[in-house]
Amino acid sequence: MDEEDLQAIVDDVSFLIEHHEEAKLRNLLVDMHPADIAWVLAELPEEKRKYLFSLLDAERASDVLVELDDYTREKLLDELDPSRISEIVDEMDSDDATDVVSELPEEVAEEVLERIDKEDSEEVRELLRHEEDTAGGLMALEYVAVNENATVGEAIQEIRRKAEEVGEAFHVYVVDDDGHLVGVLPLKRLILSDEKTRVKDIMDHDVVKVDVETDQEEVARVFQRYNLVALPVVDWKGRLVGQITVDDVIDILEEEATEDIHRLAGVPEEEEPRETSVFRISRGRLPWLAFAFMGELGSALVLSHFQASISQILAVSFFIPIIMALGGASGNQIATVVVRGLATGEISRGEIGRKVWRELKVALVNGFFCGAAIFVVVNVWLKDPHLGAVIAIAMVAVIFASGLIGTLVPILLHRLGYDPAYATAPFIATSNDVLGLTIYLLLVTKLLKIG
Amino acid sequence: MDEEDLQAIVDDVSFLIEHHEEAKLRNLLVDMHPADIAWVLAELPEEKRKYLFSLLDAERASDVLVELDDYTREKLLDELDPSRISEIVDEMDSDDATDVVSELPEEVAEEVLERIDKEDSEEVRELLRHEEDTAGGLMALEYVAVNENATVGEAIQEIRRKAEEVGEAFHVYVVDDDGHLVGVLPLKRLILSDEKTRVKDIMDHDVVKVDVETDQEEVARVFQRYNLVALPVVDWKGRLVGQITVDDVIDILEEEATEDIHRLAGVPEEEEPRETSVFRISRGRLPWLAFAFMGELGSALVLSHFQASISQILAVSFFIPIIMALGGASGNQIATVVVRGLATGEISRGEIGRKVWRELKVALVNGFFCGAAIFVVVNVWLKDPHLGAVIAIAMVAVIFASGLIGTLVPILLHRLGYDPAYATAPFIATSNDVLGLTIYLLLVTKLLKIG
Repeated sequence: MDEEDLQAIVDDVSFLIEHHEEAKLRNLLVDMHPADIAWVLAELPEEKRKYLFSLLDAERASDVLVELDDYTREKLLDELDPSRISEIVDEMDSDDATDVVSELPEEVAEEVLERIDKEDSEEVRELLRHEEDTAGGLMALEYVAVNENATVGEAIQEIRRKAEEVGEAFHVYVVDDDGHLVGVLPLKRLILSDEKTRVKDIMDHDVVKVDVETDQEEVARVFQRYNLVALPVVDWKGRLVGQITVDDVIDILEEEATEDIHRLAGVPEEEEPRETSVFRISRGRLPWLAFAFMGELGSALVLSHFQASISQILAVSFFIPIIMALGGASGNQIATVVVRGLATGEISRGEIGRKVWRELKVALVNGFFCGAAIFVVVNVWLKDPHLGAVIAIAMVAVIFASGLIGTLVPILLHRLGYDPAYATAPFIATSNDVLGLTIYLLLVTKLLKIG
Repeated sequence: MDEEDLQAIVDDVSFLIEHHEEAKLRNLLVDMHPADIAWVLAELPEEKRKYLFSLLDAERASDVLVELDDYTREKLLDELDPSRISEIVDEMDSDDATDVVSELPEEVAEEVLERIDKEDSEEVRELLRHEEDTAGGLMALEYVAVNENATVGEAIQEIRRKAEEVGEAFHVYVVDDDGHLVGVLPLKRLILSDEKTRVKDIMDHDVVKVDVETDQEEVARVFQRYNLVALPVVDWKGRLVGQITVDDVIDILEEEATEDIHRLAGVPEEEEPRETSVFRISRGRLPWLAFAFMGELGSALVLSHFQASISQILAVSFFIPIIMALGGASGNQIATVVVRGLATGEISRGEIGRKVWRELKVALVNGFFCGAAIFVVVNVWLKDPHLGAVIAIAMVAVIFASGLIGTLVPILLHRLGYDPAYATAPFIATSNDVLGLTIYLLLVTKLLKIG
């Protein structure tokens, strides 16, 4: 179903809710994919959303809740009483249950954990111990594992035993007597092998795996590098403790990209697209503006310092915006390429020197073109080749300086262990402005011998 | 293996190549994952890369080539003769083979297609007919499909028959006598069912699928929405024609995020992080700078128009950078949130009105804070409450106007079918500058009655 179809369903559902057509609504819901129901719920206003969700039985409700965006899910959970939440959580895989429980207020979470199946609640408590953005925080405890001495037939028995608990399964993990992960067996090979074959004779020995404490960004990188659909997680002793599936990784990649994009523009990375409180959004974005504000006070000081020169040749001031804007635009291009290259790993440590050098050359070349263009403009407009030459030189210098800041600041942040995406806005933008203005006015006053 | 280990291997490999230790190199390569070999190749300088790649047999070379980034792969392919390329392509799945062939110069591609297995070359020719960024361009022809009347035992026979050709398999697709996709059967269920059971009695009837012409961004969206590991592709008659696997989708998501980030900063989306030609990079980025240049000439004109006012109260010019920068920063925050929200689908059509309204309120609130701050600054610094009030009003107006541009331009582009990411740099940045400057100088001259 594409977005247009879903939008049409939102309208239908709204109509049916307004006319209390409960039977028709239930009919409609039965045929829909949980992900589509989640989409519709997110689009509905609060009261209707609550009502529609109440029509789902616990199993459906759990499937839908897993698919909901964080913001809408939190709003929905706020409205549910602990007994209903418990019913729903009881139907979930351990990783999803943990996500939900971790979002609840402490006393509600405790009540839910008391009410659900004892084994499940122990699993959730176990998973809650891991940091949310690590492999341990992402993994589920539902997977199929067999001892290396088991036969193919026994492995199939094990799949049967866990069929209910484990939703989709693509591999059987193989462990030794102490629970160490020693191999992996694709279901395809299991199907094609004789029942009596020993698992250890047909398994793959080279298993790509991660430690529970691995950061989620690195987990995503591993999935991507090795083209995986599932990744086993081991503890510090190498014992199998969980499994991460690719659907979680896709969400992480999207989250990380949004974080980077937000940071690049000076928007708090955790800002929710569905947030409705203007106050909360303003408060999140204001610090970045405050930083720009403080920085640009520097520009005001620079201008007041050079006011004598400016008043002598007012034309100098005409070109302040173009010089600042081009320094800013070029510096922003460079910083963005460096930040993204570092984030995707396409700029690796061994290459940083070469990349800096490449970007500085690009800044010089483009600075040269912009300088030539401004020289022509000043000549045609003000008929002053001397002023034109001076402004052109300033243009090249400012674009080069912006390039320097645009490469070095992200790399420095990266080296210090910070996300380089923090570098661009407002830090690079503002320092480019102040530095560009200073370079421009210094050069112009020196070269024109004014002020 | 993490990046540090790989970096160490790059150093080892370099050393071994320099000392012509071919046997040791071969030993090292045997134990490495193809993805890791690809990583090392991308890091090596051209000559060493060529040499190391020549040590791989055709099968390994094909696995490695699939994992390489586009840029390095193209460089490598340039150096290989058609017979070696043919050997390598012969080992690939149809989708990967098609990717490689489509990158080759026409006559080389033709020669390769002549040399490889006839069936394979027909598949590649078939796949080449689809647009690269559609479902047809992404899909592979290697999948397992059985007739709905087949039994579980027959399905397993079919998997066995295709075991060699199809690498990983997670589902068996089910088709009717005319090849229409009518169901899907997870391998897990196949394992747990009796050999004599009919496939149609245990298959899932609701199959998520896409049409061959579906855009790749929509394909990624479908994978994400329904948490898939593989997605069947059908033609306009609903007949099964191919399969897309999740590893391709992860690459698309990363590509699309990079594209968005590049567009947001005015960098050509196709710019290769590993590109080394300064000239090619400059040429790609220059048009965006040229646009900013032309736009900012408008700023110069505005300033020259108001030069009489500025020369009367020079302090007015001190605040030009801060007004422009804050308008720009706030407008950029808003535009970025809108662009990203549209890209991830978190801002859906039904909500656009609400989102515009929300962003404008945020702009007003933040404009108010910045206005208050600049009022205080002007008072403290220049002891001129009248000037301070006027500049504060201008600040609010400029931030609000930037917010208006920052929301409306991306939405307008989206409506017209363009990527809204094109909106921000340099278009929004430049128009914010010119508009902000004009609003500021107009308000200041009117309210202070100068000029």
